[in-house]
Formats: sequence, structure tokens, C-alpha cells
Amino acid sequence: MSVVIEKISRVDAALGVRVADLGVSTVHEAQGRKGLLAPYMRPIFAGKRVAGTAVTVSVPPGDNWMIHVAVEQCRDGDVMVVAPTSPCNDGYFGDLLATSFMAHGIRALIIDAGVRDVADITSMQFPVWSKCISAQGTVKETLGSVNIPIVCANQQVNPGDLVLADDDGVVVVRRDEASEVLEKSLAREKREADVRVRYGNGELGLDTNNMRPRLTEKGLKYQ
Amino acid sequence: MSVVIEKISRVDAALGVRVADLGVSTVHEAQGRKGLLAPYMRPIFAGKRVAGTAVTVSVPPGDNWMIHVAVEQCRDGDVMVVAPTSPCNDGYFGDLLATSFMAHGIRALIIDAGVRDVADITSMQFPVWSKCISAQGTVKETLGSVNIPIVCANQQVNPGDLVLADDDGVVVVRRDEASEVLEKSLAREKREADVRVRYGNGELGLDTNNMRPRLTEKGLKYQ
Amino acid sequence: MSVVIEKISRVDAALGVRVADLGVSTVHEAQGRKGLLAPYMRPIFAGKRVAGTAVTVSVPPGDNWMIHVAVEQCRDGDVMVVAPTSPCNDGYFGDLLATSFMAHGIRALIIDAGVRDVADITSMQFPVWSKCISAQGTVKETLGSVNIPIVCANQQVNPGDLVLADDDGVVVVRRDEASEVLEKSLAREKREADVRVRYGNGELGLDTNNMRPRLTEKGLKYQ
Amino acid sequence: MSVVIEKISRVDAALGVRVADLGVSTVHEAQGRKGLLAPYMRPIFAGKRVAGTAVTVSVPPGDNWMIHVAVEQCRDGDVMVVAPTSPCNDGYFGDLLATSFMAHGIRALIIDAGVRDVADITSMQFPVWSKCISAQGTVKETLGSVNIPIVCANQQVNPGDLVLADDDGVVVVRRDEASEVLEKSLAREKREADVRVRYGNGELGLDTNNMRPRLTEKGLKYQ
Amino acid sequence: MSVVIEKISRVDAALGVRVADLGVSTVHEAQGRKGLLAPYMRPIFAGKRVAGTAVTVSVPPGDNWMIHVAVEQCRDGDVMVVAPTSPCNDGYFGDLLATSFMAHGIRALIIDAGVRDVADITSMQFPVWSKCISAQGTVKETLGSVNIPIVCANQQVNPGDLVLADDDGVVVVRRDEASEVLEKSLAREKREADVRVRYGNGELGLDTNNMRPRLTEKGLKYQ
Amino acid sequence: MSVVIEKISRVDAALGVRVADLGVSTVHEAQGRKGLLAPYMRPIFAGKRVAGTAVTVSVPPGDNWMIHVAVEQCRDGDVMVVAPTSPCNDGYFGDLLATSFMAHGIRALIIDAGVRDVADITSMQFPVWSKCISAQGTVKETLGSVNIPIVCANQQVNPGDLVLADDDGVVVVRRDEASEVLEKSLAREKREADVRVRYGNGELGLDTNNMRPRLTEKGLKYQ
Repeated sequence: MSVVIEKISRVDAALGVRVADLGVSTVHEAQGRKGLLAPYMRPIFAGKRVAGTAVTVSVPPGDNWMIHVAVEQCRDGDVMVVAPTSPCNDGYFGDLLATSFMAHGIRALIIDAGVRDVADITSMQFPVWSKCISAQGTVKETLGSVNIPIVCANQQVNPGDLVLADDDGVVVVRRDEASEVLEKSLAREKREADVRVRYGNGELGLDTNNMRPRLTEKGLKYQ
Repeated sequence: MSVVIEKISRVDAALGVRVADLGVSTVHEAQGRKGLLAPYMRPIFAGKRVAGTAVTVSVPPGDNWMIHVAVEQCRDGDVMVVAPTSPCNDGYFGDLLATSFMAHGIRALIIDAGVRDVADITSMQFPVWSKCISAQGTVKETLGSVNIPIVCANQQVNPGDLVLADDDGVVVVRRDEASEVLEKSLAREKREADVRVRYGNGELGLDTNNMRPRLTEKGLKYQ
Repeated sequence: MSVVIEKISRVDAALGVRVADLGVSTVHEAQGRKGLLAPYMRPIFAGKRVAGTAVTVSVPPGDNWMIHVAVEQCRDGDVMVVAPTSPCNDGYFGDLLATSFMAHGIRALIIDAGVRDVADITSMQFPVWSKCISAQGTVKETLGSVNIPIVCANQQVNPGDLVLADDDGVVVVRRDEASEVLEKSLAREKREADVRVRYGNGELGLDTNNMRPRLTEKGLKYQ
Repeated sequence: MSVVIEKISRVDAALGVRVADLGVSTVHEAQGRKGLLAPYMRPIFAGKRVAGTAVTVSVPPGDNWMIHVAVEQCRDGDVMVVAPTSPCNDGYFGDLLATSFMAHGIRALIIDAGVRDVADITSMQFPVWSKCISAQGTVKETLGSVNIPIVCANQQVNPGDLVLADDDGVVVVRRDEASEVLEKSLAREKREADVRVRYGNGELGLDTNNMRPRLTEKGLKYQ
Repeated sequence: MSVVIEKISRVDAALGVRVADLGVSTVHEAQGRKGLLAPYMRPIFAGKRVAGTAVTVSVPPGDNWMIHVAVEQCRDGDVMVVAPTSPCNDGYFGDLLATSFMAHGIRALIIDAGVRDVADITSMQFPVWSKCISAQGTVKETLGSVNIPIVCANQQVNPGDLVLADDDGVVVVRRDEASEVLEKSLAREKREADVRVRYGNGELGLDTNNMRPRLTEKGLKYQ
Repeated sequence: MSVVIEKISRVDAALGVRVADLGVSTVHEAQGRKGLLAPYMRPIFAGKRVAGTAVTVSVPPGDNWMIHVAVEQCRDGDVMVVAPTSPCNDGYFGDLLATSFMAHGIRALIIDAGVRDVADITSMQFPVWSKCISAQGTVKETLGSVNIPIVCANQQVNPGDLVLADDDGVVVVRRDEASEVLEKSLAREKREADVRVRYGNGELGLDTNNMRPRLTEKGLKYQ
């Protein structure tokens, strides 16, 4: 039942470039508050924002063999998304694989497990979002699959989906919704720019958003 | 049962200023090792120390409406302390609210839940202590209360209490104990300055604190 | 049953110096993937690597008395390794003890519990790996032991063992295996340097490690 | 700062008796969804429901001395509520203390920590709600307080409050609200009895509660 | 974006009946070790095994409105599978809803959140697998969706899939794979019956499964 | 580095029989509050107490091969103690292995990981203490070791040590300390029998243990 799907339909690369100007929170809101990976997924160093196409990898616990298989399936602009078939904190990925990923144009790693060599990977400025940091090694004994739909950190990720990650976390956007989500995100950002000015001037959210009548209607009392 | 208490008795502002020179650990010790919020409350960026008056907010899980209501109740020098009525990791607070908080002189946010837009909030240098970071959005559907006593991260916080936060965590000092706690903290700090010099000179804590007789009495054996 | 063992056999200091050039991940691999402390053990600031001889301390929950006792047992080049007898997050260690440790040439603290005054300790650049950060104070009421074998973060640590810690975590090497582990680590590092060059040139791990035949044998399908 | 408050105002005992006929979920709802202890508080055996007056105990981590002190402060019909000053899983309570509690008419123990001898306590049918089960022993070295307000499992509990516990968890009712909460709870139960019959007959909640118009108004689509 | 899909393709009911004779572990193995919900999903009482067709519900945190909507979409033999859009431990379901579920022939509830009234639900013998037990109430303010694909306890569940639950946990079988998985499960069970007899007679797994040559080949040493 | 140690020195079987009359809490106290496995180790069914000789097994995460190897090393009266080399919740053990264990006289399984088929194992009344219950299957690909010292649930366990488990948890007693610990445990039990009578008669622990003078000395105030 282990399989490598070699041909996947990728989200339009131009969309990825434009989404990378937006934040995870904005995109998550714009697509109706869905697609956010669990908040334990954290960057190993702060300050990066990356968008790219998901190449998905299903791995056994404690076994990173399929990551090597998956590198060959990646193109420039891809983001590898890895999930173990049962929860695991082991360090699946280190500076050697980071070197290989960079050589193949892979933009980031998203992994619902551990990584290691984080000082080196930070020096290399290769972006990684992971569940934890652990030096615990993995074996290469059991197969998994590449480019099948996976659940990573409690979200379904399909190969070819758009993945966006920054200091707020990681969000996945369905390939066929990416264009619409981008437009909604841009519109949202425009609205927020206006609100930011008003808030900066001391206007209350109560007034900017006309919340007072509804608060009264719901029964809020002031004493 | 949702209420906004508009008039609260605030701790003396001058006390807050003086406490801000002291560390959370020192103040926690000086007041008898009480008042410390659970250690999962962490700053979103390191290096800040903030003291201020608590404006308390009780919010439903996944609903940040009352934070907007609470901003209006804040004065320059306040710290907003927010606790959900059941555990929640959602991102209640982002860069827009941070803009509003700064415009109203709110010194910091302490929230037993998640926040988002952390890269922007870090750039703005607005101090936040939270349970986690999460881009997950919240709704504005259900009321809560402002300036009622709340339990935040396993500690009771009353409106008007003094709150102190730094890289070690967050401690709350009762309004009517703040003056005494400040004096005890200053005394403690003076004692510690002396101990620091002696430790720096290589004197053992065993000797500085005259621990040897009591260790013997308790039965410690050396082999 | 509380005891301080004053004479312990320490790992050869020269080995410690040489191991400090290697990473935790490398050494953990070289000694057969054993000896790694649980990954919740994290440095309070990033970027340090420390190797030294373990002085072990078994402490009661919420009681740091024995740390004072243990300082006297330490020599230049030692690393203090502390484990509570039942799980505890309290802040056993602060800037005063850090001052004392530095005066006695102790290289680092490894503690399966909390620490505090982390801003100051970071300024002092004293390396600490801990389970958490907490300002919660401890008492000095109950004895423990120094230099007995302990379990720290799910690994057995014996007095005199070699301890290595960096941004990837903490690994313990048995005193009598340190020499062999060092040689294996150096050999491993040499091999990895070669692989790094090949990966940097875009060679796939599949080819560098000749994985394809075994993947086929295991039944991996490409579609 | 350690104190035993000997005189406390207890909730009316007759109220306690009547509340014990109601469930925790009902009372929690009737008082506006407040006062529920964290759901990790579980009974050590199923099937008991207990109501009584809170005698509160603040204990150090790993130290059960104050529980002995508190027994003397209890009357028939009291429930002892114990919280450590920092999180602790140790076994503060076993079959000997259970024997003592029963001899003094204490109805139950609510403890935000561990207990032990659970097979014996189950045989004795003494009701306990705890955070965990652990044989780890505690010491008797450090003072705490009896009958001060405490935070137990993230809820404020005052001495004299009404505590109700069953298989759903533990809820605290303020002493001066107990009478009103009882009336509201009884009213709620009456309403629920009617709903139960209608649901049992197959009527949908959508209709019983007239939810359809508001669902439509909120924009729910059927496909 | 909230929607109720009224027409779903259900797995063949006869298959469900036959699968209910098999255990979760067996079916999970037979379908290649996939589809198992996270192990924190536990039955509220032991000893039940249930198979049925998934009706899926996506709910906001702390809001159980959509469960009422979903009841109307269920048929005899369905199992309701509920997941919140962000993690939540609140008690979404109690004895009233259990009454309604039973009246509509719903076989079980699988919910990645909390439930309450567990003593009553146990008396009613209505099977529930949940993340936790909590009396914490929920509101009815925000829409969700019914019969869209969801991620529940880290597994994708589609409406119409086959769900099997027992004391070992919960497994989901894709609708179009159910027939094949049933056959494989039955075959597996037959093989296991033979192994059980041999093990009962004292034969070692080493011999039954001819493991010795491969252990030797891998390098296992006996001392 | 994978090895099976075939000859181990076992604790005196007669001691095991006598210890089985005592509780885990008693023995843990009698040996100075050490040796208790982490409290997340719970029995899969209540009411059993088992004592026996440890046969230790170090297993890779998600791989139960070595359990088969270890069965051959067991004798009547042994208890198998299993720990993965990195944390794992998978189901290493089910009803087939339970059948094999019973046929070989193995008294119990202690495993710092998951088990499955718990309904069947409960019917068989084979005692198991585990970290969790999970149907997740394991592979047989990577070697581990049998009868080396291991750390299981944060305690060192050596082959041949005495292991005692009941509803309170699991405690390990060093082989060469077992005789002394048994005597101390019996003495402790005798003392406790006396205390139990006095507590049952309503005598306060304050008096039975003469605590009042020391409480006063420590500064306890009554108000």
C-alpha cells in the first residue's frame, strides 16, 4: 500500500508568490477560518514567511526513509509536508537533508514530528516548522507514501495544495480555492489597513465596528 | 450575568512604577511565594518587564468580543488580563488590537489563550504574555464580563490588582498588599546583592547561609 | 538514605574538550542512538554547546537545598545534572546560584525542572538546559543525594559520565565508553562532510546511499 | 503567612442536601456556566454524587502536612478541597487519611494533585476527585494554610462555599448564591424533564427549541 | 461557508453489520494500519463495540448547535462523528441529546471534544467515544457544517464512511474500501485463530513466525 | 549493539510471593520513596496486584519484534518490562501475545507505550500496566535488546529486579535490596494497622503523630 505519486497538479506558482506577501492569520481568516495546522507547529527560527506547493509524505514513526524518496519528487518552489502515521517526536531531518532540500529548490519543511541540527539549519536559514526539536535518530526500514492526501497536525493536506507558513503557524489552502482565497485575503488586508489607522487614532473597536447596539441587545450591563 | 464594572479601585500608580524595577521572581518571593501564574504563560518576545494595574476580562472560549469592550475601560498604565471560561488556544488578539491597546496606553496583555500576528506585534514592541501562539480566529457572538475577579492561568486576579511580568512569567499582587510587597521586595533585593558578591567570590551557599549544622541534624551522610 | 558521594571517577577531561566540537545529534548517533534526554529539555538561550563531567543531584520536588550541597562537590569542568524525585516545574535555580556556579567553574546546569531569573542568566551567558522556566520558589527542608545514579528526563545519568548539550538537546555518554564514542563520532562527522558536498551538488540521498534496490525489494510502487 | 482560619461561615446544610439530588452539569448551567473545576479532576471510582461545604487547604508541592491540620477544622458534612501552591502529582492522601476523614464525617476529598491506596479507598467507598493516582509519598516539612480562598483546578474556592461532585466533575457554588442556584437548578431540571419526553418521542431539537428560523437567518444552507 | 449536505452515499449497511463482529485492531491492521483516530479517544463506558455509517459534523469551539442540525440528517444505523474547528474540551453532548440520538436510531457518538451526564448516558447504554468528560456547557451561536469531510482526532472522516469503535479506540474505513477491508479482516482473524492455539500451547512467536533467521541476519547477539 | 542477555540473576522468588501481599504505596515508602514509575502507568483493568522478576526489553518506537525474542528468556514468575527508545503510544501488545505470555508463566506486562485488544485481555485477566491504549500496529524491522538495564517511565529497571504493581502504579525494587525492603514494608504495615484503628476511633493525625509542637515551632497561626 506504499506508493509514490509522481504526477500531481500543482497550484499556480504565481499565486504562491502573491500569497507569500500575506500573513497566515489573514489567509486563514479569508478562507473562512479553516486549514490551520495545530498551533504546536512552530518555526525553528523566527522571522520567515514561506509559501509553496505541498509535496506530501506519509512516514512511519521513527523512520525517515520516505523523505529521501520525496526529494526526488520535488520541484523548485515546493514545500515538503511530512506526517507520521502515529505520533512521533523523533528528529527526522537534519542539516544534511536541509542541504539536499536547498539544492533542489525546496522552500521549507513542515513536519508533524521532530527535527535536529537546528543550530546549523538556522545558520543555513532553511525554514522549518516542526512539532519539536529532538536529536533522536530515525531508521530506514519501513515504507510510507509520497503525494497521497495526509493529515498533518490535524489538517488534511493534499499534494499540490498551497501551504503558507510564518511566525503565527501554518495554513493550507486547497489548490482549487487558492485564487479566490488570494483575492479575499487582499480585500481583507485593505480593510484592515483602514481599521489600523482608526485604531491608531484612538477610535474604539466598539465604534469602528458598531458593536454597541448588539451588545445592548444581547443584554450586557454596565455598572 | 454579563457585566462591565466601570469603576474599579486601582493600585497606586507610583507603586507600579517602582515595582517595575524588580523581577517577577523577587516579588513572588517577597510576597510569600504566592500569586504566580502558571509557567506556561510566556512572553511572545524576550526582554521586556512590565508592571501595571489589572483590568480583568472573562471571555467565552473562541470569542474575543469582550476585549473590545474592555479597551474602553482601560486607562494609561493598565494591563489587560484575559481568561476564557473554558480552556482555549485560539488567537484572540492580533496586530489591530495591539494598535488599539497602544493608542489607549495599555501597557501589556496577559492572556490565558492564544495570540496571533506575533511578528508584527514584536515589531511594534507591544508586550504580550500568552499560553500559546495561534492564528485561529475567534468570533464575536457571546458576552462575557469586564472587571470581575477572574482565575487566569490558575491564579485569582482582581480588577485593580498590580500585575508584574517579565521573562520569568507573570505575578499578581493584591492591591492592598502592594505597598508592603514592594518594601519586602526591595529589602530582599538588597540582601541578594550582598549574597551575589559573596557567591561571586567563591563562597559556598553552604557557608553564606550556614546550612551545614542543619544538614547534619537532618542526617546527611558524606562518603 | 541521603548521601553525598565525594569521590567519583570522572571521564577524562581531554575527551570532554574534544567532544565539545561535535554536536549532540552526531554523538547520539555515534553511540548507537542511546543516551538522549527527553526533548522537552531545552536551552534557556540558543547558541551554546557545552561538554563536561556529570555531577548528579537527586532533589525532592520543590526543594533546592541539595544544589547548594552539590556545588561543593564540583570541580572546574563539571556539569551539574539535577532530577527531582517526582515531576516538578518549580524554579530551582536563579541568578544567585548561577553566580556561584560560575565562580566554581561549573560549565552548565542540566535540570529536569524549572529555573528562573532567565534574563539575568542569559546576560551572564551561563548555559542552562531545563524542562521549563518558572519563578516559583523552592524550600530548603528535605535532603536528597549527590553523586548517586539518577534518572534525568528519562535517561540514566551516573556521576562522572560525560554530558554534551547544545541547541538539539542533551546526551549522556558513559564514562567508560567516551573514548570509543568520540572516535566513532569523528568518523561519522568525516563521512557526513562528504555527503554534505554531494547533497550540495544536488545528488539525491537515494543515490548517495544506494537506496533504490532496497526500496524496490520492499515493494515501493511509483505511479 | 501560614494560617488556619477556624471560624468560617458555612453554606446552609439543608441546601447541600437538596443540591445533592442534582447533577454537576445542571448546577453548572443553572449558575451561568461558571464554577466548574478543570475536567482533569476525575473520581477514583464511578457512581458517586456528593455535595458539601468546602473546607479549603493550600499545601506546598509534595507536602501533605496541612491535610492533617485541616481534619480538625472539619465538621460532619464538609468536603475538603486541597490545592498545591505549584502543580504536583504526588499522592497526598491514602487509606489512613480516608479512615480519619470518614471518622470525622468528611464527605469527600477534592484534590488538585494525586492520591494513592485507591483500591482500599474504593472498598471503603470514600469519594475522591483528584488530578491523578500516584503512590509517590509526600513529606511533612512546610506549612500551608487552611480556610483561605484557594484556586483549585483553575477555579476559586472559598471556605464555606458549596461543592458538588459527580461523574461529570466538580462544581463550586458561592455560599451566598447557593439558594438562588438551587432554585434555578430545580427549574432547569423541570424543563429538561419535558424536553426529555419530547426527544424520546423523536421530536427534533430543531423543533423543540424552534431553531430553524435563526439558522436560516445566520445563513445555513442545505444542499 | 456553512452547509448541510443532505444526500450522502452511505456504505452498504450489511457490511457494517459484519464488521461489527471484528475488532478495531483487526480492521486497522487489515486495511494497512491506517484510519485510526488518536488514542485519546476513549469510550465513556467499557465493553461496547459499534459499527455504523459516518454522519460528519464540523462545530465551532464551545458551540453544539450543529449537533441538533445533524440529528435530522441521520438514519437508523448512522454514527455521528463530530470535530471542533479548534481544540475544545467542553461538554457538547449530554443525556438529552443521547435521548434524541437513540430515538433516531443513531448508534453512537464519536466526538473530538467533551461530553457530560456520563452517569445517565451509561445507564442508557448509549455508546460514546470522546476526548474527555466535562460538564462545561456550550452555546448555540455560530454555524458549522454537516456532512463535509472533517478531520477528527487526526484522521480524515468523510460522510458515508464506515466507522468502527470498541475498547481499543475508533477506526474509519473508506466507503469504497469497506468490502475489501472486511474480507481482509476476516482472513486475518482466521489466521490469528490458528496462531492463538499455537501460542496457547506454548509455541514461541519466534518459531510460529520463523523469526530466527532474520534476527540473526540483522545481527542480534545472544550472550 | 543489540543483545540478548540470557543469564540474569533473579530476585529470590519467595520474596516476590511475600511482597505481593503488600501494596505499591507501602513498598515505595518502605524503600525510601524511590523506584516508582511515572503515574501515567495505569492498569488496563482494576483490582490486580502482581509481583515478579523483571525481564527487561528495550524496543524501537513502533516495533515490537523484541517482545517475541524476550518471551523465550522468561520463566514462570517473571514480569516483562518494556520501554521504547523514544516515546511511543503504539499498541505493541495484544491478545495473541497475552496468550503466549500466559502459556509461559509470565505474570504481567509493564510497558511504557500502548497496548490493544484490551477487552480480550481483560477477559483473560492478564494484568497489564501501560502508558495508554491504542490499536496502532507495530512493525518487526529493527532490533532492540533484552535484559539490559532500561529506563521505563522515568525509572531505571535492571533485569532480575523485583517489580510490584497494583492499582496505585508500579514500583521497582533492586534485587539486592528486596529482602531489606520486604522487612521494612512489613514493619510499616504493622505500624499502619495501629494508626488505622486510632484514626477509625476519631483520633486526629495531629495527635497520633504528635504534630502540634512542631507546627507551632514552624509558626502556624490559628485565627
